[in-house]
Amino acid sequence: MIYSKETVEGVVRELGIPKLENATIGEVVLLARRLEELTGIPFIRMDQGVPGLSPCRVGTEAEKAALDTDLPAIYPPAEGIPELKREASRFVKAFMNIDVAAAGCIPVTGAVAGSFGGFIAALQRDPAKDTVLFIDPGFPIQKSQLRVLGQRWEQFDIHDHRGAEPLRAKMEEQMAGGRIAAIIYSNPNNPAWISLTEEELRTIGEMATRHDAIVLEDLAYFGMDFRTDFGRPFEVPYVPTVARYTDNYILMMTSSKIFSYAGQRAGFIAVSDGLFGRRFDALAERYSGSGLFGPTLTASILYMMTSGVTHSTQVGYAAMLKAASDGEFDFVAETSEYARRARRMKDIFERHGFHVVYDTDIDRPIADGFFFTIGYGDMTCGELMTQLIHYGVSSIALSTTGSDQRGIRACSSRMTGGLFDTLDERLAAFAKDHRS
Amino acid sequence: MIYSKETVEGVVRELGIPKLENATIGEVVLLARRLEELTGIPFIRMDQGVPGLSPCRVGTEAEKAALDTDLPAIYPPAEGIPELKREASRFVKAFMNIDVAAAGCIPVTGAVAGSFGGFIAALQRDPAKDTVLFIDPGFPIQKSQLRVLGQRWEQFDIHDHRGAEPLRAKMEEQMAGGRIAAIIYSNPNNPAWISLTEEELRTIGEMATRHDAIVLEDLAYFGMDFRTDFGRPFEVPYVPTVARYTDNYILMMTSSKIFSYAGQRAGFIAVSDGLFGRRFDALAERYSGSGLFGPTLTASILYMMTSGVTHSTQVGYAAMLKAASDGEFDFVAETSEYARRARRMKDIFERHGFHVVYDTDIDRPIADGFFFTIGYGDMTCGELMTQLIHYGVSSIALSTTGSDQRGIRACSSRMTGGLFDTLDERLAAFAKDHRS
Repeated sequence: MIYSKETVEGVVRELGIPKLENATIGEVVLLARRLEELTGIPFIRMDQGVPGLSPCRVGTEAEKAALDTDLPAIYPPAEGIPELKREASRFVKAFMNIDVAAAGCIPVTGAVAGSFGGFIAALQRDPAKDTVLFIDPGFPIQKSQLRVLGQRWEQFDIHDHRGAEPLRAKMEEQMAGGRIAAIIYSNPNNPAWISLTEEELRTIGEMATRHDAIVLEDLAYFGMDFRTDFGRPFEVPYVPTVARYTDNYILMMTSSKIFSYAGQRAGFIAVSDGLFGRRFDALAERYSGSGLFGPTLTASILYMMTSGVTHSTQVGYAAMLKAASDGEFDFVAETSEYARRARRMKDIFERHGFHVVYDTDIDRPIADGFFFTIGYGDMTCGELMTQLIHYGVSSIALSTTGSDQRGIRACSSRMTGGLFDTLDERLAAFAKDHRS
Repeated sequence: MIYSKETVEGVVRELGIPKLENATIGEVVLLARRLEELTGIPFIRMDQGVPGLSPCRVGTEAEKAALDTDLPAIYPPAEGIPELKREASRFVKAFMNIDVAAAGCIPVTGAVAGSFGGFIAALQRDPAKDTVLFIDPGFPIQKSQLRVLGQRWEQFDIHDHRGAEPLRAKMEEQMAGGRIAAIIYSNPNNPAWISLTEEELRTIGEMATRHDAIVLEDLAYFGMDFRTDFGRPFEVPYVPTVARYTDNYILMMTSSKIFSYAGQRAGFIAVSDGLFGRRFDALAERYSGSGLFGPTLTASILYMMTSGVTHSTQVGYAAMLKAASDGEFDFVAETSEYARRARRMKDIFERHGFHVVYDTDIDRPIADGFFFTIGYGDMTCGELMTQLIHYGVSSIALSTTGSDQRGIRACSSRMTGGLFDTLDERLAAFAKDHRS
């Protein structure tokens, strides 16, 4: 062990973490930082999904030029600046071959603001629909948003329901009551890095149409299923999306991972043309307006949260999207570095007796990428996460992501240089101590 | 008339504005822009409160330097970067002589995000307190936020309740039931540009303590009561604030007006030390956490809306606050240009038979500044706003701000050069046509 039981327990007490096994991502980060500070021993930080690359310089240069104008003084338009809306629409076409009008592409202060606003609109549009369905495992913050809003959710772990028919049966069971307002999942998946197949996406789309639920498709790791090269604009293969199978969708995009731009808080949502112009009596009544979904979401909901998105950042984001669609910035090639890091990490874990938990997309091994999941024998989530902390390796317990499986989430983003050897040594020590 | 009845009516129909008299600020802006586009005749744009000066270059230079580092790739801390928290706390001390710990100074994506999060925390902390009290007239967006959240509010127009005792009587009447969770007002006031006296602030503070309501003091126009020079750091006179009279407060600050930085969406809230550390059972239960007000607001509410504030902008904002507190950037002198513009506008209005509606702070003429209010005879709000549009002058009806008075809000920010002569001519034409 790198950190003694006493040291870890002391810091847990100091930070007021009620139960280490159930620690949130924020608590794990604080714990790792504090232990590093106290002991001088650095952690292998597999916890937070932070970009491990430099920001896309196309964006920072465009932002700097914008900062030299008077634009920082001027409120951004509620619906976003025209060039960003246009480039967002073009990007969706270039890499997904999906048509969404520029009007429906709305900048948000991080995709997190997009899901916050999207949840509100989806849940307010029809009084009979009051529940969000999570296809888990998933991003805990999205459930926390519903906690803020005081709204209901249901969830299931997709692990035992892969494939079109099992998924359809499970979704039908959850949606039959008619209360589901929205369906949310991420693809590629945070934390499990599974990728839904076209047939699974078709099923989700069909269920959304059948039960009139809005799909919030979280594409934070857009194009990062590195088994396929999705990096060439306006060419097959295109990134898989539910948008091919239903008109009831909001795509959630972010600059955080594909452009290593997490610090600037820039994302956009793409609301399907059909949904954008659909009228809901409940929205018309609540906001004394047209009741049209897109304009209400933009002007009456998102505008009330931040009154627009940082002006210079919108210019930078537009420039990055344009560079990608022009074929001048290959974000897939850039971020494929994460796949190489993940592969090396998985090899090390497996060498020491660990296994990948979510290991296949039905019949195909999952991709290497930003995240993966790891188990050790039948250790519970909290046990494994806690034990690894004693060996200087921080991670997230899968139980905090809506997973029913035993294991942890590991992030590959920060693994560079000598850290692989350190990981190897620490896991060797772990394995030695835990061999039964 | 500059625009014929038919032209205006045509555009109102085209834009789908249900009733011009009740037009929101957004609708007035669209109408003015569209009329300009159609006719080629520019408007005197007194509608939106947009900075009419260049952005503070201390901020843009610091942002540019930050953009050259790896900081744009890195998620900002949920609670804000340390230098911004420190400078925010120092700024509050320098210009208000109020002590708020850096921990309680939390960056937000515009003060609008601060009130959104502040409302949520204030309304969730105690199930018995479910209502916000507006001391009106006020910023319509804050009521719109409560509409998004589905929360209750009450309001009164302060016009007939100026002075400590009348105000106390009115507030006691509204607060006696115990349902008021928060009290909100802006000072200097948007739209009326009245400034509350020290005795009035004392009354509000005492009522907040007595009935355990949290004051959300909106200081968007900080230091812009130009009758007094508040621009010297760490010296009397200090900007008036309710923080001197209660511990139940959240101050809402923004870079938008004092640094002409509206485009970058940067503000901060300052939560009093007492409130920051106060524990609420309802918050502990809902968020399975400590229940402490400040940490819950930061990590469980604001973080769920945007996951932090644009990283480079935090660096820029910190630099501007530091320059102000160091006495190197006199934001009061900079923005006093608005007072000169307002004075000239008021003179022109008065020359043509208009009058200032909210004209005194009890016994003292109000300041000249960013906004003022104008009436004409006994014309109603909607009538005057609508009539002025026909003469190419756009404004906001006071009725949309919670005011019971008859008139409009005018913004001085964009009046430069030849526009004063144009205003003079247009008001002369108005007066000629409306003389009874």
